[in-house]
Amino acid sequence: MQRILSTELAHHRGAIVKIAGWVHRRRLLKSVAFLIVRDAAGFAQVVCTDPDRRAELETLSEESVVEVTGTVIANAAAPAGFELTPVTGSAAPTVRVLSSAVPLPLELHRPALTASLPTQLDHAALALRHPTRAAALRVAAAATAGFRAALEAQRFVEIHTPKVVASATESGANVFRLDWFGRPAYLAQSPQFYKQLLVGVFERVYEVGPVFRAEPHDTARHLAEFTSLDAELGFIADHRDVMAVLTSTLAGMTATVAARTGVEVPDVPAEIPAVHFAEALRIAGAPAAEPDLAPAHERAVGEWARREYGSDFVFVTGYPMRKRPFYTHPDPADPAYSNGFDLLFRGVELVTGGQRLHRYCDYVSALAAAGEPLEKYAGYLDGFRYGMPPHGGFAIGLERFVARLTGAANVREVTAFPRDLHRITP
Amino acid sequence: MQRILSTELAHHRGAIVKIAGWVHRRRLLKSVAFLIVRDAAGFAQVVCTDPDRRAELETLSEESVVEVTGTVIANAAAPAGFELTPVTGSAAPTVRVLSSAVPLPLELHRPALTASLPTQLDHAALALRHPTRAAALRVAAAATAGFRAALEAQRFVEIHTPKVVASATESGANVFRLDWFGRPAYLAQSPQFYKQLLVGVFERVYEVGPVFRAEPHDTARHLAEFTSLDAELGFIADHRDVMAVLTSTLAGMTATVAARTGVEVPDVPAEIPAVHFAEALRIAGAPAAEPDLAPAHERAVGEWARREYGSDFVFVTGYPMRKRPFYTHPDPADPAYSNGFDLLFRGVELVTGGQRLHRYCDYVSALAAAGEPLEKYAGYLDGFRYGMPPHGGFAIGLERFVARLTGAANVREVTAFPRDLHRITP
Repeated sequence: MQRILSTELAHHRGAIVKIAGWVHRRRLLKSVAFLIVRDAAGFAQVVCTDPDRRAELETLSEESVVEVTGTVIANAAAPAGFELTPVTGSAAPTVRVLSSAVPLPLELHRPALTASLPTQLDHAALALRHPTRAAALRVAAAATAGFRAALEAQRFVEIHTPKVVASATESGANVFRLDWFGRPAYLAQSPQFYKQLLVGVFERVYEVGPVFRAEPHDTARHLAEFTSLDAELGFIADHRDVMAVLTSTLAGMTATVAARTGVEVPDVPAEIPAVHFAEALRIAGAPAAEPDLAPAHERAVGEWARREYGSDFVFVTGYPMRKRPFYTHPDPADPAYSNGFDLLFRGVELVTGGQRLHRYCDYVSALAAAGEPLEKYAGYLDGFRYGMPPHGGFAIGLERFVARLTGAANVREVTAFPRDLHRITP
Repeated sequence: MQRILSTELAHHRGAIVKIAGWVHRRRLLKSVAFLIVRDAAGFAQVVCTDPDRRAELETLSEESVVEVTGTVIANAAAPAGFELTPVTGSAAPTVRVLSSAVPLPLELHRPALTASLPTQLDHAALALRHPTRAAALRVAAAATAGFRAALEAQRFVEIHTPKVVASATESGANVFRLDWFGRPAYLAQSPQFYKQLLVGVFERVYEVGPVFRAEPHDTARHLAEFTSLDAELGFIADHRDVMAVLTSTLAGMTATVAARTGVEVPDVPAEIPAVHFAEALRIAGAPAAEPDLAPAHERAVGEWARREYGSDFVFVTGYPMRKRPFYTHPDPADPAYSNGFDLLFRGVELVTGGQRLHRYCDYVSALAAAGEPLEKYAGYLDGFRYGMPPHGGFAIGLERFVARLTGAANVREVTAFPRDLHRITP
C-alpha cells in the first residue's frame, strides 16, 4: 500500500490508508490511547481503543519512526479534522516500527521549544524537527527560491564561484586560513570580486552560497559561516538601478515566503523611500561629522520612514567613501560620499550594496590610496583592464533576513547547523 | 533612451535605438567599417560609411565597452538579419565609450578559442567572455535550475549545510585542514551527513553547494573544489526508489538545458536499464572477484546498454560493500553486496548513490567494523539515535555533468574559476 501524507487524510475518508512518520506524542487515557504521528507535511492522530494494545503503544518511544495502517474517519478534534482508527474487524491500527528512538534530551511535542538555545544547537539533529525550527528553515528555502525567481525573470544568470582564494584581499574582516596542497589559501569572505568579473560575461549574475568571516564577534546576529544571496548587474546609470532591482527582488522573496509558508511578511513598497546619509544623520540628531550610522541612528531613520512613508523599509544612500570598501564608486557630484547604500528594515541594516568602480585606472588609484599593491589583485583587475560596464550589486545575508522576517532573536535559531566563534559541531 | 538588447533589433525596425556591449570585432573595409558589438544576449552589427569616423573606430580597441545609438535596418548578412546604421541627418552612429580595453592576451572573436587551456584559465575574466565558454556556464545554470525544479516538484526542501566541519570523517579522500579560531577544522567533502540528518526533519532535501577534495589527482576530470548537486529522501523501500527520483531529476535537468540553451541533450528513458554489479562484471568479461569496475569495464557496460536497450544511461547496482562508505546499506538478500549504485552515462560514471543505513545499532556495528571511534561521529549518530526512516540519496558533480553534456574534454573548460592541485588563481 502506498503511503499517504498526514495532510491527505481528508481525501481518503472511509478508506484504509497507510501513513508514516515520527511518534510526536502519545496520550494514554483511561479508555483510549492516542498517537500523534508527525511527517514532513504535518500531524496525524491515530486512535486505539483496544486495551490489549496499550502496552505496545507505551513502549513506542517518542521520535520512533512508524508506519500506521488504519481507516480514515472524521473527528473535529483531530488535526485537520480526520484521524486513523482500527480497520473494521481488527482491534487496532497496525503499527510497524521502522526505527526506534532512545529517550530524548529535549521535548519536541510542546508548541514552543523550551530547551535553551545551546541545548537545541548541541542536539540539532533532534531540535530541528520541532515545527518552529523546521518552519524557519522552510522560510529560508522560500526566500532563496524567491530571490532566484525574481532575478531569473530579469535576465540574471546563476554562477558558482570559488570559496577558496589565494589572498585575503577584500576587506578588513578577518579571514580563515587553510593549507592548499602545501600553499597558504583563504576562505572567501564573499563572491564580490568574482561576481563583478562575471558581469563582464553575463551582464547580470547572482549566486547563493556560503561565505566565511573569521570575525570574533559573539553576538546574536553574527555567524562565522553564512549563506549570502549575491547579485551584480552591469550597464547601470548609478546605484539607483541597483536599488530598483533589489526592491523587486525583495518583493519576490517576501511574496514567495508568504505563498509557501504562510508567514506574515512586510509590505515592500514599489518604490522604497531613500534618504541621503547626511540627511539621515540630521533625522537621527547625530553630529554631521559622523562617518557612519550607529544602531540608534538606524532605529531613528527607521522610525522616520514609518512615520513619513508608512514603510518598514528605507534606503540610506551616499555613505561616506572612507567607510566603504575600495571598489566603491564615489558620488560624481560629491566624491567624499559614495554611490553605496544600505537598506534598513524596521531600523536595522538588512542589505548592503552600491555602484562599484568599473574603470581600470580608478582601481589603480583606489588601491594606491589604500596602500595596497596591485599584484595581489591581478586576477581581479584583469577584468577591468579588458573593459567593464558601469555596474553594481548587493548582498543579502540569508540567516539575518530570515531572523528579521520570523522575529527570531538570534540568527542561530534559523540556521540548521550554525558555525561561530565557539561552535563547529554538530 | 533605454538600451535594448542585440536580439531585440528586429522588434525596432526603422527606429532609433541604443545598444550597449563589448566591441567583439572591428572590420575596416575600404568604403565601410563594421563594428560587432557583443552583449549578454548575442551580437549586433554597426555600420559606418563616414570616412571621417574611421580613425575613431580604429582607436576603439576590442573588448572596450560602448553604447551605440543608430537606426535599425534590415540586412540579411547581419547577425539575426538587422544592423544599426547612422541616424538620418548624422554621418555615423553615435558611439560612446563606457570603458576602454588594453590589447588582449587571447583572441575572442574567432568561433573557437585558440588559446591553450592554461592561458584561458590564467585570463579567466577575459576567456569566459568567449561565447563557447559562456555557453558552458549557461548549461551549468540551466542544469542546476532543472535539478531544483524537478526536486521541488517532488516535495524536496532546499537546505544549506556547513562547509566547515570539526573532523575529517566521511571517506578516505583527503581533506583540507584549516584554522578555526585556533582550533583545527576541515572543509566538508560533501553534505552527506547533514543531508541525512535533515531527512529527519523534512523527509526529502536537496542542496546545491561547493565541496572540497584534497585529492592530488591532476586529471582532466578532477577539481579540488566543485559544485555538488545533492539529494536525499526518506521512507524509501530501497535504493530503487532513489534511482526513480534520480531518473526523473535527470530528465528535468536535460529538459531545462535543452529549453534554455539549445544544447542537444541525451534522451533519459522513463526507466533507465539497471544491471547488478556481478552481471556487469560478466558483461565486461572481467573476473568475478573484481571489487570494482575499471574504466574499461564501465565502457563495456555502457556499450551493452546502448546495444540492448538503446540507452545512453545505465545503472549498475549492488556494488560490493567493501568498496562503499560505512553508511552504505547492504543488500538484505546478499549482504556482501550493497544497495548502492552508480549511474553510467555513455560508459562513464556520472552519479553515485544508494540506500544508507538508518538504524543506530547498524551504525555502531559499521563503525566498529571500520575501526572508527563513535565519539568522532557523535553529532551525526544523534540523528539515528532519535529515529530515522529508511533513506537514500545521490550526488551529481555539476562540472562533470556539464562536461559530459557539452562534450568538453576537461572539466576546467566548463568551470568559471577552477581550483585544483596547481591552480588557486584567479
